[in-house]
Amino acid sequence: MKRLWIENGTFVTMDEQRPVLKGHMVIEGDTILYLSEQTPDPKPEGAERLDGKGLVFMPGLINTHGHAAMSLLRGYSDDEALQVWLEQKMWPMEGKYTDEDCRWGTALAVTEMLKSGTTTFVDMYDRMHIVADVVEQSGMRGLLTRGVIGLCPPDVQEAKLNEAKQFVQDWNGRANGRIRTMLSPHAPYTCPPDYIKRIVDAAHELNVPLHTHMSESAAEVQQNVNDYGCRPVEHLDKLGFFSGPSLVAHAVHLTDEEIALLADRGVSVSHNPASNLKLASGIARVPDMLKAGVTVSLGTDSAASNNNLDLFDEIRLAALIHKGISGDPTAVPAWEALKLGTVYGARAIWQEEQIGMLKEGMKADFIAINVEQPHFYPQTEIVSHLVYSGSGRDVVHVWVDGEQVVKDGQCVFLDEAQIRAEAQRCFERLLS
Amino acid sequence: MKRLWIENGTFVTMDEQRPVLKGHMVIEGDTILYLSEQTPDPKPEGAERLDGKGLVFMPGLINTHGHAAMSLLRGYSDDEALQVWLEQKMWPMEGKYTDEDCRWGTALAVTEMLKSGTTTFVDMYDRMHIVADVVEQSGMRGLLTRGVIGLCPPDVQEAKLNEAKQFVQDWNGRANGRIRTMLSPHAPYTCPPDYIKRIVDAAHELNVPLHTHMSESAAEVQQNVNDYGCRPVEHLDKLGFFSGPSLVAHAVHLTDEEIALLADRGVSVSHNPASNLKLASGIARVPDMLKAGVTVSLGTDSAASNNNLDLFDEIRLAALIHKGISGDPTAVPAWEALKLGTVYGARAIWQEEQIGMLKEGMKADFIAINVEQPHFYPQTEIVSHLVYSGSGRDVVHVWVDGEQVVKDGQCVFLDEAQIRAEAQRCFERLLS
Repeated sequence: MKRLWIENGTFVTMDEQRPVLKGHMVIEGDTILYLSEQTPDPKPEGAERLDGKGLVFMPGLINTHGHAAMSLLRGYSDDEALQVWLEQKMWPMEGKYTDEDCRWGTALAVTEMLKSGTTTFVDMYDRMHIVADVVEQSGMRGLLTRGVIGLCPPDVQEAKLNEAKQFVQDWNGRANGRIRTMLSPHAPYTCPPDYIKRIVDAAHELNVPLHTHMSESAAEVQQNVNDYGCRPVEHLDKLGFFSGPSLVAHAVHLTDEEIALLADRGVSVSHNPASNLKLASGIARVPDMLKAGVTVSLGTDSAASNNNLDLFDEIRLAALIHKGISGDPTAVPAWEALKLGTVYGARAIWQEEQIGMLKEGMKADFIAINVEQPHFYPQTEIVSHLVYSGSGRDVVHVWVDGEQVVKDGQCVFLDEAQIRAEAQRCFERLLS
Repeated sequence: MKRLWIENGTFVTMDEQRPVLKGHMVIEGDTILYLSEQTPDPKPEGAERLDGKGLVFMPGLINTHGHAAMSLLRGYSDDEALQVWLEQKMWPMEGKYTDEDCRWGTALAVTEMLKSGTTTFVDMYDRMHIVADVVEQSGMRGLLTRGVIGLCPPDVQEAKLNEAKQFVQDWNGRANGRIRTMLSPHAPYTCPPDYIKRIVDAAHELNVPLHTHMSESAAEVQQNVNDYGCRPVEHLDKLGFFSGPSLVAHAVHLTDEEIALLADRGVSVSHNPASNLKLASGIARVPDMLKAGVTVSLGTDSAASNNNLDLFDEIRLAALIHKGISGDPTAVPAWEALKLGTVYGARAIWQEEQIGMLKEGMKADFIAINVEQPHFYPQTEIVSHLVYSGSGRDVVHVWVDGEQVVKDGQCVFLDEAQIRAEAQRCFERLLS
């Protein structure tokens, strides 16, 4: 089996037992075999050796909410409110999408994510077999789900749900388990209750988790109250959405009672600070959720509302804005912010036994950061530096499932120049 | 005279008359000689030629508040309130500073700023002759000022003020005008009123502007009310601080009346969003200030409270947080955010005729950004991409005063490896 021996590296493990250590890591196949300050004895036979000097190694970042193919619409509509942006700008353009647009938009996003240190992402979109195909080829890890909008006749609803189920059946567990799947009503405001109920039943039947957008804007919460007599959390709870594993994106507008309910039901939250700020949706109550025991993770949302997919930006934002808003400079400290993007991300998608940490026996999903740069000096508080000064551009190497997918800043299994050119061509056609 | 001809570039000029153009720019000596979509005719004789393909050129960024030498304390104290951070952590360490610490701390900051596209910075510190020396050598443009704290006996106050005045006399206008100077009481809460008055008089006498910290935290505003019976803006106004050119950093806690007064007096504001968030000081009322006609610019503050000096981060933060706080997705749009870091920065330091814009006759302070990267695709809304997706790491070349100071990501006049090593050594000695 293939082996890699990293010597003399600094490892930010995200493991509370030994958060930072200097030493050696050995990878065998897709797994971390050895991690210690001591030189491995006996030395791993036939291992490729990598000098870790000047590099910091940490778990790959986990982006728990996005729509990769929308990266074609980066910058297409800025400075608009959520509903206008979505209904008047995004949906008409997305209505024109072909398979090709989905392929190159997704590839553009995957390239950006891999190069900036994200090794696992959650993607909710349509034409998911194309997304899965790109993910399989790229070497990335993905939790993929066909998001369905139910504002359509029953036969179309039926067809969408069947497509979503078929995708689960076709792709769940493929690519050595790198690809997993979910089912997803797009949002309570885009799916009638009975349709959500049917999707929940289908998820239980197929034994996969559920994902949706929830309580992103105040207007949407109010609409839920008007339409169904309760706020979205209660609404989804009544529909059984939280009765199995579930992940909700945004969760910006929550009452204390709603936070308590999410904690009680074990619901995972994907906090998307940049997207929520940019669309002026508000600022999620992250410190309160963390205190209540809710698993909070980080997502970029799509490049159309962010407008980048660098999870380091979300980590820093999460560390900064909750201090400023709460007036408490100890809110979301650096270590906690880094956990949002790693350990908590893994927990939010029910993979904490496999990824999000550098630890023997876990999957070899990790990244190497060039710290021989002025913004990482003096080299003392490396966790603080990663959070407050780090960027996806500092990432030089990326491994997923033991395979090197980015080397010296370039994707190994994707043709970046072709992807940029095709993405440009697709966007120009959509615009015309 | 030395000439540079950039061909086939994309220029984000920050000039409202032609914000973005594709074409040619010719530099002669320290000045932009030509900028047009047309090939220069006749062709500039003896010019060095640069192919602008794949690059976006824009004015160098302007960082209007910081303390460069404090970059040695990056990450030394996170997650503390302003007064604790300052009085219990920073001041004791800074009390141990030697000339060497000031030199290598400043050099580390200048390296980080130049590489990330900042061409002009405001620096308030002590041992300013050392700071000026580093600035002169680096090729950067600086507006430098000896910040004085007046919580000391009269003879020490006197000595500090004399030192500050001497620095102005020694350095104002040096290095082909790249170095300019100011006078600076550190803050209303660290300088007795009569001392501030003497500094104001000295600034008028020497014909230089004034700079100070103002209304950064709510506690400091309350203390001003307790001590002097009025809020800091009125207090400084009464002391004549705003009667000549003045720049205040932070300005987080302002009433409507105070904003109106700052607008009326033509006071410049340095908005430091990351530092204000990190220290939980609050969020400045930037949209209100802009609406009132106050000149707002951007500063990183020191690396000890940010913890990086990449002005692209501040630009993006300024574009994002004011939308999220106000609930208005049109607050601080991308173009306005980019102006905060360029045109408004130049105006805030009274150099708008020379820098902050790409325009014939202005100083050749500009940067080149590698846009052949996924986060800049599709290549459509380049201003949006720079603001929402750009980073200082995307900067490949930097020119100041017509001189190339960063080439292929490396400082031309500074030895980066030595600076990193010396900064590390200095910090370890301070810590011991």
